Amino acid sequence: MSRIIALESYDVRFPTSRHLDGSDAMNPDPDYSAAYLILRTDDASGLAGYGLVFTIGRGNDVQTAAVSALSHLVVGRDVDEVLGDLGAFARTLSDDSQLRWLGPEKGVMHMAIGAVINAVWDMAARRAGKPLWRFIADMSPEQLVATIDFRYLSDAITPDEALALLRAAEPGRAARLRALVEEGYPAYTTSPGWLGYSDEKLARLAREAVAEGFRTIKLKVGANLEDDIRRCRLAREAIGPDVAMAVDANQRWDVAPAIEWMRQLAPFDIAWIEEPTSPDDVLAHAAIRRAIAPVPVSTGEHTQNRVVFKQLLQAQAVDLIQIDAARVGGVNENLAILLLAAKFGVRVFPHAGGVGLCELVQHLAMADFIAISGSKEDRAIEFVDHLHEHFVDPVRIRAGRYLAPERAGFSAEMHARSVREHLYPDGPAWSGTAAPRAVAARASSA
Amino acid sequence: MSRIIALESYDVRFPTSRHLDGSDAMNPDPDYSAAYLILRTDDASGLAGYGLVFTIGRGNDVQTAAVSALSHLVVGRDVDEVLGDLGAFARTLSDDSQLRWLGPEKGVMHMAIGAVINAVWDMAARRAGKPLWRFIADMSPEQLVATIDFRYLSDAITPDEALALLRAAEPGRAARLRALVEEGYPAYTTSPGWLGYSDEKLARLAREAVAEGFRTIKLKVGANLEDDIRRCRLAREAIGPDVAMAVDANQRWDVAPAIEWMRQLAPFDIAWIEEPTSPDDVLAHAAIRRAIAPVPVSTGEHTQNRVVFKQLLQAQAVDLIQIDAARVGGVNENLAILLLAAKFGVRVFPHAGGVGLCELVQHLAMADFIAISGSKEDRAIEFVDHLHEHFVDPVRIRAGRYLAPERAGFSAEMHARSVREHLYPDGPAWSGTAAPRAVAARASSA
Repeated sequence: MSRIIALESYDVRFPTSRHLDGSDAMNPDPDYSAAYLILRTDDASGLAGYGLVFTIGRGNDVQTAAVSALSHLVVGRDVDEVLGDLGAFARTLSDDSQLRWLGPEKGVMHMAIGAVINAVWDMAARRAGKPLWRFIADMSPEQLVATIDFRYLSDAITPDEALALLRAAEPGRAARLRALVEEGYPAYTTSPGWLGYSDEKLARLAREAVAEGFRTIKLKVGANLEDDIRRCRLAREAIGPDVAMAVDANQRWDVAPAIEWMRQLAPFDIAWIEEPTSPDDVLAHAAIRRAIAPVPVSTGEHTQNRVVFKQLLQAQAVDLIQIDAARVGGVNENLAILLLAAKFGVRVFPHAGGVGLCELVQHLAMADFIAISGSKEDRAIEFVDHLHEHFVDPVRIRAGRYLAPERAGFSAEMHARSVREHLYPDGPAWSGTAAPRAVAARASSA
Repeated sequence: MSRIIALESYDVRFPTSRHLDGSDAMNPDPDYSAAYLILRTDDASGLAGYGLVFTIGRGNDVQTAAVSALSHLVVGRDVDEVLGDLGAFARTLSDDSQLRWLGPEKGVMHMAIGAVINAVWDMAARRAGKPLWRFIADMSPEQLVATIDFRYLSDAITPDEALALLRAAEPGRAARLRALVEEGYPAYTTSPGWLGYSDEKLARLAREAVAEGFRTIKLKVGANLEDDIRRCRLAREAIGPDVAMAVDANQRWDVAPAIEWMRQLAPFDIAWIEEPTSPDDVLAHAAIRRAIAPVPVSTGEHTQNRVVFKQLLQAQAVDLIQIDAARVGGVNENLAILLLAAKFGVRVFPHAGGVGLCELVQHLAMADFIAISGSKEDRAIEFVDHLHEHFVDPVRIRAGRYLAPERAGFSAEMHARSVREHLYPDGPAWSGTAAPRAVAARASSA
């Protein structure tokens, strides 16, 4: 019998604000960071599980503390028991009644829960010797449904309906598996479109993206309408009429400005407008969608949990959704969201970028293709070419497609040296160079 | 010129789980706790500001760390500048782009922001020599509107509409002020209805509540339908037909069970069903309300921010709302919520209990009566008789009514000795006696 003997958490930060990578209308100077965790076991094989929460800098210490606050629910537990019922394990985390008060099921504590759950799925897939996408795809419909918490979902999808959806996707699995391994899964790229880039850099990167094989690019918008009109025109000229172009406002607008802005950008043939307003505002997304149709509306990278995704779908507020591997309560909750999307016939364009989000979310999209929606038509996983070198099993992109991971696990493990060098505030990447505001935060009395 | 020179934060916990005070269907064994903070200044008068986030035990360390993570936005700032524009101050906290990623505007980080904002309002009222309710009531409509962040609200209420509402409430202010000071503000009590209590204790406490002058009581429900039917019958018999009786399910149900359960409880003349389902589920509240009318539906103590309150009102999902002084982004956001409620004609029954929530929220209800809704008809502030002795300016209840606070400030200050004795995990209330699970959490490697 082996046990989980430690939950180690690390405050890892990359000083990305020095180059304005990742700048958008809401996030002008992020330092891409991770509250990174390792679950150690006493298994003779050295079995471990890895997970992370992505943040953009300040507060990563709070997020790391939240991960550590879950130790009592994990450390000391029997590995077979935990991996043998991944649904029950996830419930023990989300059902801690005292911790639940801090959400419930949202924000810092929910993301921490999600990271620990993801680390346990990583451990399960490693023990099975499979990449996570394959580990999920090989589960029976009954096993998959048993991992899901249907609380607050039963007015939209029941376990029986979920089972029926999964059974309907069983024919063709072998062919889809072959197609995935041979072709990969489509990617789209946000690399050209960060707000901090010059027009020249935008146009050059857009052309390069098309040359590399991407069929969709995305631009950040929302800071200044005149700038956005000019940038959309430049990008459209650079990529030509046959490549899709999405825009992302990162929550900048109320309903009226969202409608006005998108009417001005619609002539550039917009694939979707992402996060036009508050991620909490189901009714506002619905109002915007009605007003700007046929421009598709989308959100999801900040959608806090399955309950809000459910409402976005019930209210016909979105044409497609993003999922994020590190925002909600782990693989289990993302499976619930993928099932909801399949039931409502809405396509999923997973959110990625940041630290490790590409590495993680590719597994969910690929499992969805094999076992849930059964489709990768008109779908793509976001790709941003940052920070992959810090991961032991980094994503592999060929001709605008994610190749299916082959190593066992969830691809969340970082190189020990990368963790060590970017530990905040004492790692070599930070010591002596930390931003003044960040230093002030630590030096103040508390 | 004086400056804010320190943000001190304290992990304060009361071992309430030893007596099952505060037990409900979702929270069987809370240890009522506070992430408590003091803003120190170098003002010669000793000016300070006090605030807190209420939690129910585990994770209070994470909440306290989140409060400390805001130090860089507060410490070193000029007191006149901060108190001179309380709207701008609140925006500097909610607009920190890196911290915003951890919500946005929800959960641990948003509650921390709310507590710091509340501490600054406490400081402002102290400096003005007024209790907070009076400080707010004495603001002009223009001053009050200037404190509010209307982002994501403009499809429901604009600054001009808010101004018009406040101006319409100006006639009669003097008379309402006299009435408040003479009569107090109605209270209702949850003390009889905790799930952990025996039938005998429930009936006895219900009779005592009526004898003490309360006109509304509230029972926790949702764990077992047969028990709830029996307990509602007992309570109704104890209080007679003329006292109102509300029930609170603490988020236990999906839509279908909520409807079924409430059809069984409706014969006991239910004043409202509170938190029938997930606090995130606007559409489910609307569906439940349509199905169980005329039983009123309510929620709010876990409603994360103004955006969700707005949607509850837009979707006609609730008949009344709870506000909580320590869940959302401080006084500013609660003023926005009170204005929304006034615009939509929905009554407010503030949530209280816990640690200091009664002390805080009474000020908001009283300010609402004087300056916003202009009414305290068919309204009441929740009252639970726990832990008031730890506060320097505890609530005063007479004949089922909150008396208007007279001391300057927001009544959040705790006795220094109470803080010292209940510091977790090393205060005398905890050392050597902490619950095993809590100890395990701290002892595990991380």
